[in-house]
Amino acid sequence: MPNFADRLLAAIDAKGAPICVGIDPRPDWIPNSFFDVAFKRHGKTPAAVRDAVRAFCIAVLDVTAAYTPACKPQVAFFEALGPEGMLDFAAICAHARKLGLIVIADVKRGDIGSTAEAYAQGLFGGAVAKGIAMNSLEVDCATINPYLGHDGVEPFIKGARQGGGGLFVLARTSNTGSAEFQELPLAQGGTTVEEVARKIAEWGKDGIGERGYSDVGAVVGATHKDAAVRMRQLMPNTLFLVPGYGAQGGALETIKACFSEGRGPSASLRTGAIVNSSRGVMHAYAQGPLQKYGEARWRDAVVEAARDFNNEIGRLVH
Amino acid sequence: MPNFADRLLAAIDAKGAPICVGIDPRPDWIPNSFFDVAFKRHGKTPAAVRDAVRAFCIAVLDVTAAYTPACKPQVAFFEALGPEGMLDFAAICAHARKLGLIVIADVKRGDIGSTAEAYAQGLFGGAVAKGIAMNSLEVDCATINPYLGHDGVEPFIKGARQGGGGLFVLARTSNTGSAEFQELPLAQGGTTVEEVARKIAEWGKDGIGERGYSDVGAVVGATHKDAAVRMRQLMPNTLFLVPGYGAQGGALETIKACFSEGRGPSASLRTGAIVNSSRGVMHAYAQGPLQKYGEARWRDAVVEAARDFNNEIGRLVH
Repeated sequence: MPNFADRLLAAIDAKGAPICVGIDPRPDWIPNSFFDVAFKRHGKTPAAVRDAVRAFCIAVLDVTAAYTPACKPQVAFFEALGPEGMLDFAAICAHARKLGLIVIADVKRGDIGSTAEAYAQGLFGGAVAKGIAMNSLEVDCATINPYLGHDGVEPFIKGARQGGGGLFVLARTSNTGSAEFQELPLAQGGTTVEEVARKIAEWGKDGIGERGYSDVGAVVGATHKDAAVRMRQLMPNTLFLVPGYGAQGGALETIKACFSEGRGPSASLRTGAIVNSSRGVMHAYAQGPLQKYGEARWRDAVVEAARDFNNEIGRLVH
Repeated sequence: MPNFADRLLAAIDAKGAPICVGIDPRPDWIPNSFFDVAFKRHGKTPAAVRDAVRAFCIAVLDVTAAYTPACKPQVAFFEALGPEGMLDFAAICAHARKLGLIVIADVKRGDIGSTAEAYAQGLFGGAVAKGIAMNSLEVDCATINPYLGHDGVEPFIKGARQGGGGLFVLARTSNTGSAEFQELPLAQGGTTVEEVARKIAEWGKDGIGERGYSDVGAVVGATHKDAAVRMRQLMPNTLFLVPGYGAQGGALETIKACFSEGRGPSASLRTGAIVNSSRGVMHAYAQGPLQKYGEARWRDAVVEAARDFNNEIGRLVH
C-alpha cells in the first residue's frame, strides 16, 4: 500500500501547487439557481435543500478538480442538514474520489480505544460484522483531535494506514481562541502545543514515506507566524494542513513558514504543507474582486478563484 | 425553557439514582438472535447488520428505561455502520426520547465559529435554509472537545441552551493516555486540565439553574481519584458525566469524589454527577456474575444489571 504522504505529494506535483479546496456548503454560499431547480423537483422541503447542497458541491468539485490535488469536505455542514446529511457527505466524498482528488474529511473526530477504532472504520473502512463488510466513507485522510492522548490517536493511525490513508492531527489551530489551551506555558518550558507537536512527530515516525514525510500530519493555522515557525522546527517530517488562507487573515509570509526549505530531488521546491481555502473558492462570486461575475456567473468566479489560488501558492513554493 | 441541569436532576430524582446507560452497539455485544431475525429479513447484508443493531439498542432502551434517567448513545459505533448509520443513531435517539429518557449524544464534536454552530444545529436543531427548517437529532445534550478554546465551545453552548439542552465538555478523561496532555504541569502551577476546568466553570456561569448546577457540564473519568477531587474543587457548579464505571476500572471511591456533598433541599443527598455504564449493562449477559443467564436470556441479564447499577449508585448518593 503506498504511503499517504507520498500519494499526496505526487498529487500536488501533478496539479502544480500544494492546495486544497474546502467544501463547506453553508446554505448562504449556494447560488439561488441550485435552490430553484431543487424546489421544482422536491417542493420547499428539507430534501430539496439537501439536493441543492449536493448539486452545488459536485459542481464546485467538477470545475476546480483541474487546479487542486485535494479537497476537504467539512462534515459539520452536512450534519447540519439532519441525519440524512451523512449520505450527502458520502456522495460528495465518492464524487471527489472519482475525479481523482485526495479526499481529506474534516471531521475532527476523537475518542479512545475501540471507540476511536469504530470512527476510523466509518472513515476508512474495515468494519466487518458477522462476516459482512460494512460500508464506509472510504476517504483518504481525516482530521482528528489529540486532546485524549495517544490511545485516542493510535486507532486512527492504524485504521488510516491500512488502506494507504493518513491523518492531520490538530496542533495549532487558526481561530482566535486557539491560544487558550494550546499556548499555555509549561513548567518544563515551551507551551502545550509544542508537547502536542512532539507527540505528533513521534506518532508519525513509523509512517515516513519515500519523500521524507509521514502519513501522520498536523493542522497548523496560517494566522500565527511564530507558532508556524516553532511547529515546523518541532515536526520536520510532518505534513501540515494549513487552514486560514484568505478569509481568516492568514498572511502569505505565515503560510511560507509552514513549508520546509527544499529537499529531495528538486531542492529549490518548498514542500511539507498543503494550504486550504474554503470561502475564497466556493463563495468567490460574492466577495473580493471576483464579485464582478455576480451570482449568475458563479462558475466563472469559482474557476478563476481556484486558478488564482493554484498560481499564488504555486509561486510561493517554486 | 427549563435549564438542562434542572431537567437532568429532576429525571435523576424520578429514577432514584444518577446513572446513565451507555448505548455502544459493538456488533460483538449483540445477541445472535437479533442477527438471525435480521438475516431472514434482509439476507446477509450490511442493511441486516444495521437492522440487528437498531433492534438490540431499542430493546435495551425498552428494558432499562425504568431504572435510568438518561442514556448515552455513542455515535462512533453508528458511524462504523457506514454513512447510513447516522439514520440508525437518529432512530435510537428518537426512541429514547419517546421513553422519556434524557439523551446524551456522545459525539465529542469540536470545531470553531460557524462550523461549530453547524454541528450544534445537527445535534439540537435550529438550522434553517431558505426558510426551510432542517431535521436534527434533537438530543438533550452532547459531549464536546475543548481543545480549540472558547470560540470552539460557545456556539455549542448557544445551540444547546436555545432548546433547554446542555453539554458535557471533556475535562479529565478516563483512558490510560489521558494524562499525556491533560496533566502537563504548567508554569503558573497546576496542570492543563485545571485550566480547562476553570474555563468550563466560567463558560457555564450564565447557565446555572435553580438547583445550583450549570447546563455546561464536564466529563471526568472515574479512574483517577486525585484528579476527580481537584476537578470537583475547581468546578463546584458543574455537573460531571463520569465514564469508567466497572469496565474501565473506576472505583466507587473515585466515583464518590465526583459528587458534591449534599446541598439544597435534601442536604443528605450527594449531587453533581451522573455515572455511565455501557458494557456493564448492554453486555451483562457475557461477563461477570450475570453470565449465569447466558445469551438466550440476555434480557434478564440486562435488566438485572441496570437494577443493580441503579441500586449501587443510588446507595452511594443517599
